Amino acid sequence: MARARRIPDDLARQQADQPAGEVAHFGADEPLVLDAGISLAPFQIAYRTYGTLNAERSNAILVCHALTGDQHVASQNPVTGKSGWWDIMIGPGKPIDTDRYFVICTNVLGGCMGTTGPASTDPATGQPYGLSLPLITIPDMVRAQAMLVKRLGIDTLFSVVGGSMGGMQVLQWAAQYRDAVFSAMPIATAARHSAQNIAFHEVGRQAIMADPEWRGGRYLAEGTRPSAGLAVARMAAHITYLSDAALHRKFGRRFQDRDAPTFSFDADFQVESYLRYQGEAFVERFDANSYLYVTRAMDYFDIAADHGGSLARAFAGTRTRFCVVSFTSDWLFPTADSRQVVHALNAAGASVSFAEITSDKGHDAFLLDEPELFAITRGFLDSAARARGIA
Amino acid sequence: MARARRIPDDLARQQADQPAGEVAHFGADEPLVLDAGISLAPFQIAYRTYGTLNAERSNAILVCHALTGDQHVASQNPVTGKSGWWDIMIGPGKPIDTDRYFVICTNVLGGCMGTTGPASTDPATGQPYGLSLPLITIPDMVRAQAMLVKRLGIDTLFSVVGGSMGGMQVLQWAAQYRDAVFSAMPIATAARHSAQNIAFHEVGRQAIMADPEWRGGRYLAEGTRPSAGLAVARMAAHITYLSDAALHRKFGRRFQDRDAPTFSFDADFQVESYLRYQGEAFVERFDANSYLYVTRAMDYFDIAADHGGSLARAFAGTRTRFCVVSFTSDWLFPTADSRQVVHALNAAGASVSFAEITSDKGHDAFLLDEPELFAITRGFLDSAARARGIA
Repeated sequence: MARARRIPDDLARQQADQPAGEVAHFGADEPLVLDAGISLAPFQIAYRTYGTLNAERSNAILVCHALTGDQHVASQNPVTGKSGWWDIMIGPGKPIDTDRYFVICTNVLGGCMGTTGPASTDPATGQPYGLSLPLITIPDMVRAQAMLVKRLGIDTLFSVVGGSMGGMQVLQWAAQYRDAVFSAMPIATAARHSAQNIAFHEVGRQAIMADPEWRGGRYLAEGTRPSAGLAVARMAAHITYLSDAALHRKFGRRFQDRDAPTFSFDADFQVESYLRYQGEAFVERFDANSYLYVTRAMDYFDIAADHGGSLARAFAGTRTRFCVVSFTSDWLFPTADSRQVVHALNAAGASVSFAEITSDKGHDAFLLDEPELFAITRGFLDSAARARGIA
Repeated sequence: MARARRIPDDLARQQADQPAGEVAHFGADEPLVLDAGISLAPFQIAYRTYGTLNAERSNAILVCHALTGDQHVASQNPVTGKSGWWDIMIGPGKPIDTDRYFVICTNVLGGCMGTTGPASTDPATGQPYGLSLPLITIPDMVRAQAMLVKRLGIDTLFSVVGGSMGGMQVLQWAAQYRDAVFSAMPIATAARHSAQNIAFHEVGRQAIMADPEWRGGRYLAEGTRPSAGLAVARMAAHITYLSDAALHRKFGRRFQDRDAPTFSFDADFQVESYLRYQGEAFVERFDANSYLYVTRAMDYFDIAADHGGSLARAFAGTRTRFCVVSFTSDWLFPTADSRQVVHALNAAGASVSFAEITSDKGHDAFLLDEPELFAITRGFLDSAARARGIA
């Protein structure tokens, strides 16, 4: 277990303020009015693009990332040195084909990879925001993305695509900017976070806030890091990303490096060792306060509540083409959640296709090698591209 | 969140050494040989009994408790002041009828309610054992119970009954002391702990061990308590005891004391407030090191592995009558786990009935008001009592 490992403050803050990739700055004259009722200005959005925007500006696809993702969707991540988190999906000749489409991916508001978040420097104090940053919602994230899309000179996105929290942003885009979204692909997601999911998030937040190194959120200013708490939060969350079957297949009850129990609290089972590694690796790349902010944004998400309790009303009159995808073994965002979205879209008279993909990989399936997902994505975009007149 | 709340050491240690109820002491001449290969002596077992042992000594039912249960199964708990944890099931005229049966319930080895555990005083040092207590297994717990049953002058238990970890003890009793178990009722349990369940336990242990107040397990000697870590462990575990449907019905997305979000990290949703309460209440009654020991015992549990990989072999030739029960919405010990036990019992030629009860209450259903469970328990015991010649 990584306990209170010291990472130089400067590194974390530099990443937050001066990320790799492109950055769009929005000044005092372009404030972002947050759902919390506060105007955020100045702020910045870190993003990456892949492929080329065509002359008609009609081939842009916005890809939205999940809870701990970032803008490095299809290129090496400068912090971890690993491939982009959806490298398997996006690139030349791949299902989201960068030879045809112009792909944009932004780090979400509240994140820690260059878009304004709690680790960013508060211009008013010269110190990291910490908890003085107002709370962020999914609609806030989407409003910030819309400001960037506008600045890039794009009126209508050819598609918005994302899984999990990324799928929440897709749904929010379709509800909030209906004329700016030609097609939308929400994957392994829901139109509102469930009580069980809020409960899991609350456990993670409590683990972070229970760590004395968290210092009431002021750890960056005080030179500490709540690594132990953040690692526990990640471990608990990680279990929910997999299925019982996937854990059984991967690890079963196999012991680590031996045949029998050690009769100790060491990581005896392979699954324990794996989980500890997940926790340790995570704290090297993610900011604990960002984890608080972004989980909270997901908890608050409830499109129907923002439309008088009717999800269908949120999409009434939409002309966006939808493709909704779920996975059979996903118990974090089960198929029932996707079906609820599909029913609302049907009630709203939308054009919608729905696929429940058979997989035992759990929620994480959307990030993994799932040929059926690739085929569906390629087919859906092909068909939409023909309708949109993209070569 | 209860953070590092100080509970006088003396209180915790007094409870561990001098519990309410009956205590059986086993001296240096009656050591308990543990699976870890170490002899534990002296040690003690705290227990409660209800009803009267008949002249034939043929009406004794051993009730085995789950992870955080104790011996106070059908009478007021002296620590919490609450009713016994299975008061709804056990008592005069109830399904486990104390007018007919003599009920015994022991605190498990490794527990913290009077049976020897990590909070008990190590006679060699005069200090609490802490992590110097050898690791405990489910078979160790059962061996200790068998020593008590023998001391009470009982050769054959009329029945062994328990849910969750209690059900593991039931199965272990039937495998290890087959001639001493007339009937057995394993409820909401499994013959081995799954990878997912080990993973959830590991998160809880890491939360405890990450708490600086844990002090490498020496907190009782050092006058601290890892309350924050233990509360997080309990919160994570508590989610697994309920079903998604039960959480939705109980709390949904309802806000606490208001209609709208506070845009803060307060317990905004009712489900958050409930979870925090569960964590806080738990640390008042449970020892953190016991939590480590008892979860570890469950992780190690794998009856088939102790019988050359064959669960049927563990029960070959058994004459015990079995009644196996599961609940449809239990995702911690899903019906598939019970079915595996039933298949093995069938293969072993055992007398076995099996009921999957429809309930949306999740794993906790076995502790709650489930009329079908009560009817099945009453019927199974009635039938076994006739076969056993109990009036």
